[in-house]
Formats: sequence, C-alpha cells, structure tokens
Amino acid sequence: MTTHDPLHDPILSGDRRALARAITLVESTRPDHRERAAALLDGLRDTGREALRIGLSGTPGVGKSTFVEAFGLMLTGQGKRVAVLAVDPSSARTGGSILGDKTRMEHLSRDANAFIRPSPAASHLGGVARRSREAVALCEAAGFDIVLIETVGVGQSETMVAQISDLFVLLLAPAGGDELQGVKRGIMEIADLILVNKADGDLKSTATRTVADYAGALRLLRKRPNDPEGFPRAMAVSALESSGLADAWEQMQTLATWRRDNGHWATCRAEQAAHWFREEVRAGLLARLDTPEVRADMTRLARDVAEGRRAARAAARDLLDDLGI
Amino acid sequence: MTTHDPLHDPILSGDRRALARAITLVESTRPDHRERAAALLDGLRDTGREALRIGLSGTPGVGKSTFVEAFGLMLTGQGKRVAVLAVDPSSARTGGSILGDKTRMEHLSRDANAFIRPSPAASHLGGVARRSREAVALCEAAGFDIVLIETVGVGQSETMVAQISDLFVLLLAPAGGDELQGVKRGIMEIADLILVNKADGDLKSTATRTVADYAGALRLLRKRPNDPEGFPRAMAVSALESSGLADAWEQMQTLATWRRDNGHWATCRAEQAAHWFREEVRAGLLARLDTPEVRADMTRLARDVAEGRRAARAAARDLLDDLGI
Repeated sequence: MTTHDPLHDPILSGDRRALARAITLVESTRPDHRERAAALLDGLRDTGREALRIGLSGTPGVGKSTFVEAFGLMLTGQGKRVAVLAVDPSSARTGGSILGDKTRMEHLSRDANAFIRPSPAASHLGGVARRSREAVALCEAAGFDIVLIETVGVGQSETMVAQISDLFVLLLAPAGGDELQGVKRGIMEIADLILVNKADGDLKSTATRTVADYAGALRLLRKRPNDPEGFPRAMAVSALESSGLADAWEQMQTLATWRRDNGHWATCRAEQAAHWFREEVRAGLLARLDTPEVRADMTRLARDVAEGRRAARAAARDLLDDLGI
Repeated sequence: MTTHDPLHDPILSGDRRALARAITLVESTRPDHRERAAALLDGLRDTGREALRIGLSGTPGVGKSTFVEAFGLMLTGQGKRVAVLAVDPSSARTGGSILGDKTRMEHLSRDANAFIRPSPAASHLGGVARRSREAVALCEAAGFDIVLIETVGVGQSETMVAQISDLFVLLLAPAGGDELQGVKRGIMEIADLILVNKADGDLKSTATRTVADYAGALRLLRKRPNDPEGFPRAMAVSALESSGLADAWEQMQTLATWRRDNGHWATCRAEQAAHWFREEVRAGLLARLDTPEVRADMTRLARDVAEGRRAARAAARDLLDDLGI
C-alpha cells in the first residue's frame, strides 16, 4: 500500500494553502524536498482533472495585470476556479519578483475561487519553466478550471510558456504600423489569439487599426495544422472597461474545443510531457556539476586551462572521469 | 618518456596535410579518435606559438568570400601564413557545407602559405564551435600567423566565434539607413571593426554614407573597457578592388597590439579557455545520453510520461538512477 504525502488529500480537496505549500516544495532545491516533490507529483498524476492552461504574454505597459484581474474576475464570476502563475525570466537572476503579484491584482487575490502565485526563483529560465510546469500540474490536481500562465515579452520565455500551455494569448497595446515590427515573428507564430488591449477612450480607434494590422500579419503566416478556420485571430479588448473579455473567452473555448475534438489537444500535451521529461533528464545530469566539491574542481581546472597547463578537452575528461561519467 | 602522436612533429613543421588530418581527428566522434585527439591537443598546448585569431562575420551577399580571398592574398603576399576556418551553423543540420570553401577562394586555396578548412559537421552549433576552437589551436601550433574564423550572420554563431577570436570583424554591404536596424545590437556590441564592403563603382558613395551611419551607431554603444580610443571603428573597403584592405589590416594590428600591451589579450584568452573548458564538461556530461541504449530508454520513458503513466520528474530520476548519476 502506498502512503500518500500529507499534502496529497488537501490538494485534491482544493485547499489553497496546501497547494501553495506544495508549489514551494516543488520549487525547493533541497534533496529531501526534491524527492518528496517528485513522489507527490507522481501521486497526483492521474486525478483525471484537466484545466485549460492559457499562456499569456505581454510586455510591461500593455496592461497585463489589469487584464488578468478583469479576465480572472469574469471567470470566477461564472463560478470557475482560476489559478494565475507568473513565469518571470528575470527571477532567474533576481531570485523572484520583488513586487508581489497579489498587490497587482487586488480584487482577484481576495477571491476565494482564485489562486495567484509569483514566479519561482531558479538559477535559469529553463529551471523557472520546469518548476512552473509542475505548479500547473498541482493547480490542475487541486481542481482549478483555468490556469493562466503569464510572462513578460522577451522571446525565450514565451516559447517556454507555450510549452506548458494549451492556448497562447498575446496581449498588445494599440500602436502604429511601425511598431508592429517589434513583435518577433516567432512570437506571432505561437500566438493563438492576439488581444489588443486599451480599446477604450482616446485609443479606441488606434486599437481597431492595430487589430486590423495584426490580423493582416497573421494571415501572412502559414496555416498551422492544429488550427480551425479563423485562427489565429486578433481582437480588441479593454481590460479597464471589461469589454471584449467575454468574446475573447468564447474564442478561447471555441479553439480549445476544436483542438480537443480533433485530437490535437492530447497530442500536444503528450509532446509537451515528453519534451519536459527530456529537459528534466538534461537538467538532472547537469546538476551533477552543481555541488560545492565539483564547483571547486571546475574552478581549479578552469584555471589550469586558462593558464595553459592543460588543454580544455583533456581537463574536461579528467573531471568527468572523477565523476565516474 | 612521453611518446608523441605521429601527427605531432609534422604539425609543428607546418605540414598542411598533417594539419588537415589532425583537424579531421579532432572532429571525429569515434571514441578512439576522441582519445587520440585529446592527447594530441594536450601535447601541442605549449608550443609558444600564437596566431592572431580574427573572427569574421558577414551575411550572404556582402562578398565575404571575395573579401577573405583578397585579404588572405594580401597577407600571404607579405609573407604571412594564413589559415581560414569556417563555422557554419547550418552544418549542424546538413552535415557540413555542400559548396566547398576552396572553390569559393580559388587563388588563396592554391597559395602555399594558406590553409582553408570548411565547417565541421556536428550535431549542434556548440559542437561546431568547440571543434573549431581546437582547429584554431592546431593551426596555431602549425605556425600560422593569422587564423581567420568566418561565419554567416545569424546571431548565435557570431557570439561563439567571438569566443574563439582575439578580434571580431563584421563585414557589411552598403545600405540605406533603414537597413542599419537589421544588424542586431548584440552583434554590434561584439564587433571591433565594421568593414563596409563594395566601396567601388556605383556603390562607393552609399558605402561612405553607410560607414558614417555605423560609426554613429557605434558611438552610441557604451565604451568597452578593452578598447583603445577610436575603437570599435567603421571603415569602407572594396574586396573587388583590394582597396582599404591594408588600412583595415593596420587597424586590426593597432587594436591587437594595444590589447596585448594592456593585458586584455591574455585575460581574454584565459577567460575563453575557461569558458570552453566548462562547455566541454557540459557536453561530455550530456554525451552520456547519446548512446543507442540510453536513447532507447529515453524514448520508452518519454512515451510513459506522454501517456500519463509516470510524471516527468520521476521518470527522469529513474533514468538518471540507471545511469548511476
């Protein structure tokens, strides 16, 4: 008989405090925590629960927090349970966001049906994404219907967030045609839905033009095999006035349903799982270098190489031999 | 008493055929070749010979081959021995350049003081760069005075080439101000010398304007600590008419001498050596995954993870345990 982790049952019953503690466990680098986290995740693997995982990217200034707050409140107002996870590449260096995400989303953070979690601190972006993916799995096990995984627009982080999402939403500000060039082609290619925010007040007509510009740009991209007619799509929203949000949600559901019905959903999740397994293996292997002893050996040998006493390859071979690799 | 590799002495005497064979050995993935290559490189580590390693980047169409041919012939004409190595990121997929570099540089390739080597084929760009770095060391041991390491302009490959070079030269075509934006900031930051080629015929005045544009852009970049006054610098050349080449060479020597006199040269080479040592260690560690048995295990476990029978982290742990990691 397998004994479950004490956090197992509380998570299944949707206890947000247990969920928060489990995510902390998953993010820990302590060996005993790592072992416990792995067992906990493995035990929660087959709950049969499935959330809609929405990746959301937007550069600072597009009103991402306002959007998440308004969109999240709309969903909880419909009785949905919503989790918001941040993937912040800068946390890889600074050790986590300084400004708490909860202060950015004041109402949503007090909503009993919402759960907000800042970005994990990890030594590099790949680590942040791996831990975020496990946090998504925990939210799913805790019965959340929608998991929003938000990131800032810096290219690499979007690609990683897309690898842990079912849908990818790009939030943009209204802008002239010239600025359209600023969105990298790679990001356009992973976006399922482009939302031009701030379609209110003075910016309303600019937002409408921006939507048309991006709709044109999206048409120029090749048709992707896992999209129904009309996707990817661009539309205007106003997080401030909560307008267009219901329509945006409808589009997300339409796309999700289509992908589910056409088998793309399951294929995509399976490919993502295999991808992250490979990343776990690589990271686990490289973690062998991350002990005080090996770091000291590396430093010593790097100096030998730098000072010409040893060639790089031969010195690397010595170190790997010592590690039994 | 250490017995030297049979290629050791011929390389030291500058035998180009031995050099070519040694580079082939270095690029080999066969375990016995790898071991022999490591020993050969370690044995040739302290010859006291030092070449000027010049990284050269240019997108297709800027006349890179014409430049290398003209520049190389100018140098061999001065009695210098010149090696040209290509680092082609596409070779990571295609398995080496299809068009031989020798046909691109017809005269230089027949010059007894020149040595031309196409890009190594490796499974990824990091591998290409690691092997190229060792090829540079072999050329240096073989007594070449200048090693030109050329690459096409795709961002990542420039950064790697800069990590195996003493100087970095960016070759550009004459162009209007708009196209200036196309050069990524990161590339501008590693360039020591920007050469605007094709300053001949109808394009002469455009080339002069382009030089001014880039000179302005370079002034906007922050001053780097390892540059003398006036560097980085932009100038016009014509590979076709062999004009400006002597001036460009003088600038390269000025910069190299200044860096040598100010200790930057040695510091930079030491940092590069330590960097590539760390890359060798990482690559050697990840090579543990690159056996038929492990690949088969990975595929099987990836399927388990994809089909929900195992969580990614737990499956990765199983695999690493099997590897004794």
